Amino acid sequence: MTPDPRVGSSHNGDNSSAVTIAKAARSAFESSQLLPPLERVTALQEIKKELEASKDAILAANQKDIELAQVEVDAGRMSGSLLKRLDLNKGDKWDSMLQGVTDVASLPDPTGRVTYASELDDDLELYRITCPIGVLLVIFEARPEVVVNIAALAIKSGNAAILKGGKESSNTASLLSQAIQRALSRTSLPETYIQTIQTRAEVSALLDLDQYIDLVIPRGSNSLVRNIQNNTRIPVMGHADGLCNVYLDESADVEKAIRVVVDSKTDYPAACNAVETLIIHESLLQSVWPKVAQALLQADVQLLCDSPTLHALSALSPGPANLSTHVHPSTPSSYTTEHLTLTLSVVSLPSLASAIQWINSHSSHHTDAIVTESEESASLFCRGVDSAGTFVNASTRFADGFRFGFGTEVGISTGKIHARGPVGLEGLVIYKYILKSKGEKGHVVGEFGVGAEKKKYKHEDIATTSLPF
Amino acid sequence: MTPDPRVGSSHNGDNSSAVTIAKAARSAFESSQLLPPLERVTALQEIKKELEASKDAILAANQKDIELAQVEVDAGRMSGSLLKRLDLNKGDKWDSMLQGVTDVASLPDPTGRVTYASELDDDLELYRITCPIGVLLVIFEARPEVVVNIAALAIKSGNAAILKGGKESSNTASLLSQAIQRALSRTSLPETYIQTIQTRAEVSALLDLDQYIDLVIPRGSNSLVRNIQNNTRIPVMGHADGLCNVYLDESADVEKAIRVVVDSKTDYPAACNAVETLIIHESLLQSVWPKVAQALLQADVQLLCDSPTLHALSALSPGPANLSTHVHPSTPSSYTTEHLTLTLSVVSLPSLASAIQWINSHSSHHTDAIVTESEESASLFCRGVDSAGTFVNASTRFADGFRFGFGTEVGISTGKIHARGPVGLEGLVIYKYILKSKGEKGHVVGEFGVGAEKKKYKHEDIATTSLPF
Repeated sequence: MTPDPRVGSSHNGDNSSAVTIAKAARSAFESSQLLPPLERVTALQEIKKELEASKDAILAANQKDIELAQVEVDAGRMSGSLLKRLDLNKGDKWDSMLQGVTDVASLPDPTGRVTYASELDDDLELYRITCPIGVLLVIFEARPEVVVNIAALAIKSGNAAILKGGKESSNTASLLSQAIQRALSRTSLPETYIQTIQTRAEVSALLDLDQYIDLVIPRGSNSLVRNIQNNTRIPVMGHADGLCNVYLDESADVEKAIRVVVDSKTDYPAACNAVETLIIHESLLQSVWPKVAQALLQADVQLLCDSPTLHALSALSPGPANLSTHVHPSTPSSYTTEHLTLTLSVVSLPSLASAIQWINSHSSHHTDAIVTESEESASLFCRGVDSAGTFVNASTRFADGFRFGFGTEVGISTGKIHARGPVGLEGLVIYKYILKSKGEKGHVVGEFGVGAEKKKYKHEDIATTSLPF
Repeated sequence: MTPDPRVGSSHNGDNSSAVTIAKAARSAFESSQLLPPLERVTALQEIKKELEASKDAILAANQKDIELAQVEVDAGRMSGSLLKRLDLNKGDKWDSMLQGVTDVASLPDPTGRVTYASELDDDLELYRITCPIGVLLVIFEARPEVVVNIAALAIKSGNAAILKGGKESSNTASLLSQAIQRALSRTSLPETYIQTIQTRAEVSALLDLDQYIDLVIPRGSNSLVRNIQNNTRIPVMGHADGLCNVYLDESADVEKAIRVVVDSKTDYPAACNAVETLIIHESLLQSVWPKVAQALLQADVQLLCDSPTLHALSALSPGPANLSTHVHPSTPSSYTTEHLTLTLSVVSLPSLASAIQWINSHSSHHTDAIVTESEESASLFCRGVDSAGTFVNASTRFADGFRFGFGTEVGISTGKIHARGPVGLEGLVIYKYILKSKGEKGHVVGEFGVGAEKKKYKHEDIATTSLPF
């Protein structure tokens, strides 16, 4: 036997533990492919049971993480909001984490679907069938329940996964991971199907192992995503900033404008699908814009305005009470900032075409909306804006896997290949081609070609949704 | 107005021309999105006309490339096979290049297809619609007709493209590119929809511009692909070596085995879908294997054998005439080499499971075949082998976009995301979500939630294949 050709050398110094982890994940994935898909549902049920049985120990570890984080917060080295996200015992967080496992288990199997079937010749059948991608490396921050969430999605879609959480939640994540592995050990799936790592050095070494790892999914800041993209050959599915725009078209209805803009900004300002820039057609400066602005000021939104939109507000008399505290001139960087707070940048433009251009050069290609009464403007906007979501008279906040009806969400991709927008389980599968000859002599290419004595390809669709074996 | 935030700094020194090219491509793509898709078909027809009108000049430039290449061949600095691939006037190459443009033009439009439609609420409709990816950077070697081929695929799928061919064909490629741009100037598509670059420095600078370029498609050697993957954040769709395997199962029929193995090896040995390693179930060493070996030796194939398969042949009496010249012991590297010639590595293994493991760790995940009479073995093989193509009693040479019925082929992807195996026009599109409110007040997220006063999501499928505008 030859040595495994896939053990390459690494430019990272100490990568032996990373290689061991990556090889174990690869091997777990490969052997799992021979098991019936229902085993994966069984595994999810076992995981839920084991988490229930380990609840006390996990919450104790979580308490330890919280106490350590409190020290950091007190010393000014960690934000209070980060600490809050650590708490697994808050509200219904524990129960909804477990419910999530049940929900994912009950979703339709995304693998094993025939998406193309064609008879190439008599008794020669081609099938394209959905299958798992392979080994996922998922990197996320803070919230420890993501370990369970991602493990459930990976198992349901047939992918092995290596998970790296934030160091703030390491005690919790470690116990969650142990519970998952104990559950897996009671199933036919390998224990190393889901593995957890703790250090950045391990992540760095794993990013080098494209022979074992098929996809990296970073869930976190834009800088995390770019840093990973800069340091790996492995494909990365992530999302950049959520720089969403709402454009008020010349024909915008004022009530729709107010409702869509206020909801897009205030429903949950910290989310990536909240609006950050409002674009006003300049014909609305004296009509629709002041009413939208008043509604935003009433909702306590700070406005960073370009000169025309600023001027239109200062001419108001009497102005809203908080006009002087909440309205300020914008700067160029206002339009490239993901505020994530009750702050909104505002700009006026002379046309739909210029709005589309503006969005294409400023947006992060996440979700952009138009408010319009014109079907033609709506159509041009949706064709012209190169974003994962283009919405008409609807809040940008609808950009979400649950709201879209996908049952769950791996994340929102602002990339342009594989999966775009809210990514459900479908984003964790790819396909393979199965070609089956039922001919008495098998099938060879040399028999096909030009000339009377050669066979021709049939390429006839086969109406089927299942494989022949 | 703020400066365009997407003009980032580059770690490459002189990238101003690359930025100009990339911005022009981006702008061409964005403005093309507002044109009716039929304009792209018109453009392809114009390109064909312009190529016909420019035939003499293009072939003269091609002759110049050939003469320059001949000097290199004579000096031992270029291979004769590379020179042969340069010749655009050989056989029916010119005519089939033009026919290719017509063929691509007549394929169904891969964009604008509704692949998911759901009513989220009364009068709130979600559509997932296929659309171009954006700007492609395609890098290829030698054959100048690829310029036309790729330009046609890009235009048909609605993507702008920047093309870099081999320097050996630069005179030809330059005239082909000029003809394409002249044709585009007579259409509503921007001239910069298809651009050609000449230098590696430009490629290097472009690989840095992920704000403008969405996908890199390298068509060439494995080292080219890896070099590009190592030097860009932009997603790469390429293919690694074509290390294809054929496995003869315990139950293999001898005639099928001979036909499939000989065709897989000899139909076109230089292709990436030719077989490089033959795996023999050890129960066949004295029965099927010697007959397969004799057929291979008759076809002038060199065999690199492990000890059991070697021993089984040396025991033949009388052996085939070329036994001593064509059969040699293998070395470990035999099984990781893409021979691309009439050479085949051979190994014996004790079971289907070990064959699957062998393939998963040695194959380049391109195409692997089993010869078997057992439905169970076929099913296990197709599930267990993690390759783009898993074939049963059929030659690996069927792995091809034309044979699969895709009409044309962008390339064969050995990656695990976006597109896998032979990639047709479908591999050059992605999708976007369009959300349209027809409600009297538009739609906002804040109205949905738990509690009696809140709306619930409907998530009802809409039976449609077209957009509402």
